[in-house]
Amino acid sequence: MKSYHGGLGVGIAGIVQRRHDEPKPGKHEVLIRVRAASLNARELMILAGQYSLPVKPDVVLLADGAGEVITIGDEVTRARIGDRVACAVFPRWIGGRFGWEFAAQIGGSLDGMLTELAVVDEQAVVAIPEHLSWEEAATLPCAGVTAWNALSGLRAPVPGETVLVLGSGSVSLFALGFAKLFGARVIATTSSDEKAERLRRLGADDVINYRSIPEWHVRVRELTDGRGVDHVIDVGGGGTLARSLMSTAVEGQVAAVGWLANEASSIDIKAIAGSIATLRRIAVGSRAQFIAMNRAIAVSGMHPAIDSVFPFADAVSAFRYYEAGKSFGKVVIAMP
Amino acid sequence: MKSYHGGLGVGIAGIVQRRHDEPKPGKHEVLIRVRAASLNARELMILAGQYSLPVKPDVVLLADGAGEVITIGDEVTRARIGDRVACAVFPRWIGGRFGWEFAAQIGGSLDGMLTELAVVDEQAVVAIPEHLSWEEAATLPCAGVTAWNALSGLRAPVPGETVLVLGSGSVSLFALGFAKLFGARVIATTSSDEKAERLRRLGADDVINYRSIPEWHVRVRELTDGRGVDHVIDVGGGGTLARSLMSTAVEGQVAAVGWLANEASSIDIKAIAGSIATLRRIAVGSRAQFIAMNRAIAVSGMHPAIDSVFPFADAVSAFRYYEAGKSFGKVVIAMP
Amino acid sequence: MKSYHGGLGVGIAGIVQRRHDEPKPGKHEVLIRVRAASLNARELMILAGQYSLPVKPDVVLLADGAGEVITIGDEVTRARIGDRVACAVFPRWIGGRFGWEFAAQIGGSLDGMLTELAVVDEQAVVAIPEHLSWEEAATLPCAGVTAWNALSGLRAPVPGETVLVLGSGSVSLFALGFAKLFGARVIATTSSDEKAERLRRLGADDVINYRSIPEWHVRVRELTDGRGVDHVIDVGGGGTLARSLMSTAVEGQVAAVGWLANEASSIDIKAIAGSIATLRRIAVGSRAQFIAMNRAIAVSGMHPAIDSVFPFADAVSAFRYYEAGKSFGKVVIAMP
Amino acid sequence: MKSYHGGLGVGIAGIVQRRHDEPKPGKHEVLIRVRAASLNARELMILAGQYSLPVKPDVVLLADGAGEVITIGDEVTRARIGDRVACAVFPRWIGGRFGWEFAAQIGGSLDGMLTELAVVDEQAVVAIPEHLSWEEAATLPCAGVTAWNALSGLRAPVPGETVLVLGSGSVSLFALGFAKLFGARVIATTSSDEKAERLRRLGADDVINYRSIPEWHVRVRELTDGRGVDHVIDVGGGGTLARSLMSTAVEGQVAAVGWLANEASSIDIKAIAGSIATLRRIAVGSRAQFIAMNRAIAVSGMHPAIDSVFPFADAVSAFRYYEAGKSFGKVVIAMP
Repeated sequence: MKSYHGGLGVGIAGIVQRRHDEPKPGKHEVLIRVRAASLNARELMILAGQYSLPVKPDVVLLADGAGEVITIGDEVTRARIGDRVACAVFPRWIGGRFGWEFAAQIGGSLDGMLTELAVVDEQAVVAIPEHLSWEEAATLPCAGVTAWNALSGLRAPVPGETVLVLGSGSVSLFALGFAKLFGARVIATTSSDEKAERLRRLGADDVINYRSIPEWHVRVRELTDGRGVDHVIDVGGGGTLARSLMSTAVEGQVAAVGWLANEASSIDIKAIAGSIATLRRIAVGSRAQFIAMNRAIAVSGMHPAIDSVFPFADAVSAFRYYEAGKSFGKVVIAMP
Repeated sequence: MKSYHGGLGVGIAGIVQRRHDEPKPGKHEVLIRVRAASLNARELMILAGQYSLPVKPDVVLLADGAGEVITIGDEVTRARIGDRVACAVFPRWIGGRFGWEFAAQIGGSLDGMLTELAVVDEQAVVAIPEHLSWEEAATLPCAGVTAWNALSGLRAPVPGETVLVLGSGSVSLFALGFAKLFGARVIATTSSDEKAERLRRLGADDVINYRSIPEWHVRVRELTDGRGVDHVIDVGGGGTLARSLMSTAVEGQVAAVGWLANEASSIDIKAIAGSIATLRRIAVGSRAQFIAMNRAIAVSGMHPAIDSVFPFADAVSAFRYYEAGKSFGKVVIAMP
Repeated sequence: MKSYHGGLGVGIAGIVQRRHDEPKPGKHEVLIRVRAASLNARELMILAGQYSLPVKPDVVLLADGAGEVITIGDEVTRARIGDRVACAVFPRWIGGRFGWEFAAQIGGSLDGMLTELAVVDEQAVVAIPEHLSWEEAATLPCAGVTAWNALSGLRAPVPGETVLVLGSGSVSLFALGFAKLFGARVIATTSSDEKAERLRRLGADDVINYRSIPEWHVRVRELTDGRGVDHVIDVGGGGTLARSLMSTAVEGQVAAVGWLANEASSIDIKAIAGSIATLRRIAVGSRAQFIAMNRAIAVSGMHPAIDSVFPFADAVSAFRYYEAGKSFGKVVIAMP
Repeated sequence: MKSYHGGLGVGIAGIVQRRHDEPKPGKHEVLIRVRAASLNARELMILAGQYSLPVKPDVVLLADGAGEVITIGDEVTRARIGDRVACAVFPRWIGGRFGWEFAAQIGGSLDGMLTELAVVDEQAVVAIPEHLSWEEAATLPCAGVTAWNALSGLRAPVPGETVLVLGSGSVSLFALGFAKLFGARVIATTSSDEKAERLRRLGADDVINYRSIPEWHVRVRELTDGRGVDHVIDVGGGGTLARSLMSTAVEGQVAAVGWLANEASSIDIKAIAGSIATLRRIAVGSRAQFIAMNRAIAVSGMHPAIDSVFPFADAVSAFRYYEAGKSFGKVVIAMP
């Protein structure tokens, strides 16, 4: 069987494919025939040497994947052969709050999903919604769970509240979809009228083109009768935080998601002092959140947005395409 | 102007209509031209002498009503002339947890809404959703807010969770509608196939006829793959609580709503000991919950279920009709 | 090495001691030299055949124990040789809410701590506070964590709130001690003046002798100026629940702890209908709660109440003594 | 009767004393004979013209005060003649979350407490703990409630958690005292060894002199075995926020309190991106929080820290003394 390996700072050019013998699961492990995997910004950060959590040398790449359980260890109770599963990015973060003892992560300090056969601890394994294809299910662990946690991890939206999502990255698209499931009104920002139209089709009630309206927080206030929004999913860091805070209602929440740890920018302290809001930095989410999210997806029949699917043999092209930053929805690699 | 008055234990036969001079609002009060009012079980309990909170003698009846602000006191800031408003049942319960100091209530210790002109403290006043008629808005304060609090006051449903509503009383119908806004799956119980059909049209995903399936909790477990439901809105007291508890998932919630304080029944302690659930007794809800609920109704465009509308002149007939217990949705009294 | 084994319904007379070879930990397991273990009501329920969760045949008895890590598996990261540890009763319930997939339990479906050497999954292992003796640390997993969860799992006491603990069982004694750490005022009930004095020495602000004052809920109201208490730790089931509910303040909480699943009693529905309170049934607590509790014990320097210590060789006598129900504090078995 | 008046930007020099007739309470108002009042940074901000909320012209100064109810309006139910009371800074913020409709504030848009006789809405009135003197009670409304909300408004400290308080301003001193009531360990920072000693006497477990240890966040990590603190009460804004965030544990909280809205500084976005923490901006607290805080003070017997007491006749000197910034504890003005 074949896997793609990489490491901290090796670049896309440093990705190598290797052949291995078929692995055997330990007593609490399962062997998964991976059917699809998908890409996240963290992969590019790892390859660029900018990732802040530990990465093992020559790691099998990619946190996100889905497949079928084909063998299980002697004492496994959470999975059966034939189960359709994905893996939690932090297999040991079962529920409750995050902590460093749960920081081992798939496709980082642990081997990942860009492989034909993956052995994972049974705790990592989460059943996927039946109506999703392998490609769709492979998009959930990182971007899906992050969006779910960002929206609902502190104080979930209540129907009738307003959620602001910035841009059309995958976390934002998931957050848009989930916010609608929570009964929220959604305002999205984007850079082009074409993307605006796609965001509307995904359920956005209002879309603001931040190129034509650079002071988009003013527009957000207008759209909410001056009240501001209850939740912001801020994926922009220093470039957006001040405006996000100026967009929030009293006692609103801003979730800080996927910011670059080495971004060289700053925010005026007045932006924080002048709002009565809560800013929350998050790190993906727990297995319990993954399960809750899957239940929401299953009951609603929602489908994740997919931009494109590359064959396993051409996985490196998927990295190059994703790096170019033109995708709308997830970039997926499908196994034969 | 005319009002209908009653009191503790006077019966429907004891309701009297009186004429009054037009009242003047004090500096923090507003004068409302009431356009519609509606009935709740509490009214029958008051008239039957079975109500546990204080009732002032010869009180103007009815907690629920909606109308137009026509005059305001000198220092009023929360309402303007022309506002379309309803009144919070507990005007002093602004937000946070309930307490006895907030127990003064419209149509109980304070005069109610079955009147052409009502003077209320500006704190009682809540703007109603624009898309609702007067009759619809008049149904919200008691049954609507109770259902909202029952569902969301402790830990709100998350999309994909399952909510069980019992019967087709007005609190249950509101809870059904709100649960759908929260993205939940809804199971309802009822006594007839005809009502089952109406519940399905209001959004129930599954309906159980408890006459044909008296062990309805077993059916609830089947419908949830053995897991049980996350929330139960239990309006039945001793007749349903044991089965409600047996229907809940681990860490599920049962909201105890509108139980008769003098019901002569008991529950086997095993029903409580055998579930890992939380049972929560509630009392309507706060003004903040009323406002949040209205926002959900406004954003979703939801309409409350109305059974019938009686003219103000014939208000007593509305009480008699409601007492007969055949209504599906609210019984409303409309002003000329 | 030696272990004591039992099983569902074998009775104290059915407890047997066996010799085993020294076990070896698997790659995610640790080997603990157990230094002390302690008894809980669940052990008597298992031996009496009244326990509701699965029990494996010939299980090594006792959920509670503490000891020293002497060997670790190859991939263990959460423990080092020499660590002083206890085991979480539910090793897989890491944090967040309980669920049936976390129900495997030490001394039930998994081997327990009444053994000289125990092999446990590294996830079960929790560091114990430094200032505690082995005997003291052995009392924490079941009664300590249950009391912690009962008090703080839903809405923790805030300084100045009042907590009511019933009787002087070990969960109640832990709850008393923890409630003081939370800054609460504590009212305790008991059956004798001698125990009342001991409860006062453990920090109870007021003690009610329920033999001399059978209507103890009336006395609780007097002691709280009519307001009632904010939290009740109810360990009595049908015998106490109605009075517990009548003792609570508006929006108070009653934690239902350790009730017998087969108790043949009932509660008047009026007791529930007449209070505005939340009743919460719980099952021990998570590993995260265990860790948080240990931090509280460590920072405060608190010591658990111990009634008596039996030698390992005489473990069966500990069961007989405990069964007699005269203990005040934990009954512990110490290893040589 | 006499009152001191001021206004936005008039400076301390612009404070004037005026004589008035004895006021009469309206039907929902009470008349208070004020016995003591105290100063907060907001007063200096108002006089300096830097306050962001509305201030009425010629307002009676000071949010904080305590006194005796001497007359009540006809419909008042929350106070009786003879009650010892303080006033909530936001009389209309009864409980739950803040909102702009609750923003009317004593000593800002409403007349304040630096007066011999104050008329306030009965909703503003909160009973004060019996063991406090008038001078002590007068310190509670602003700094006390702010500290209580900062500590407990989102997720209260649990015994054994660590709280970091910055400096020795009054909010920090209250937070220190409350954190101890919550069972927390407290680390404080300060600028001198003399203040360090006073902070220790008030209960601080560790004190860091930030002049001798400018990298105080490193020392905080050392004192917490690398874990960081669970709560920070950050009163420093741009000067401290980055180090506060670097001091927090995973999923820790930073409360942003009393920051100047016009502070000209900024924070590196990396400080936010690099921590997994929640930053919460707050505005004093609700009446419900005031009442809960008073209960904690009453049950614990805690006394607020007072720096000095000035006579009413010399109130302006109190402002000048407070402005000099040398006080440790509250500056109080006592009525004759």
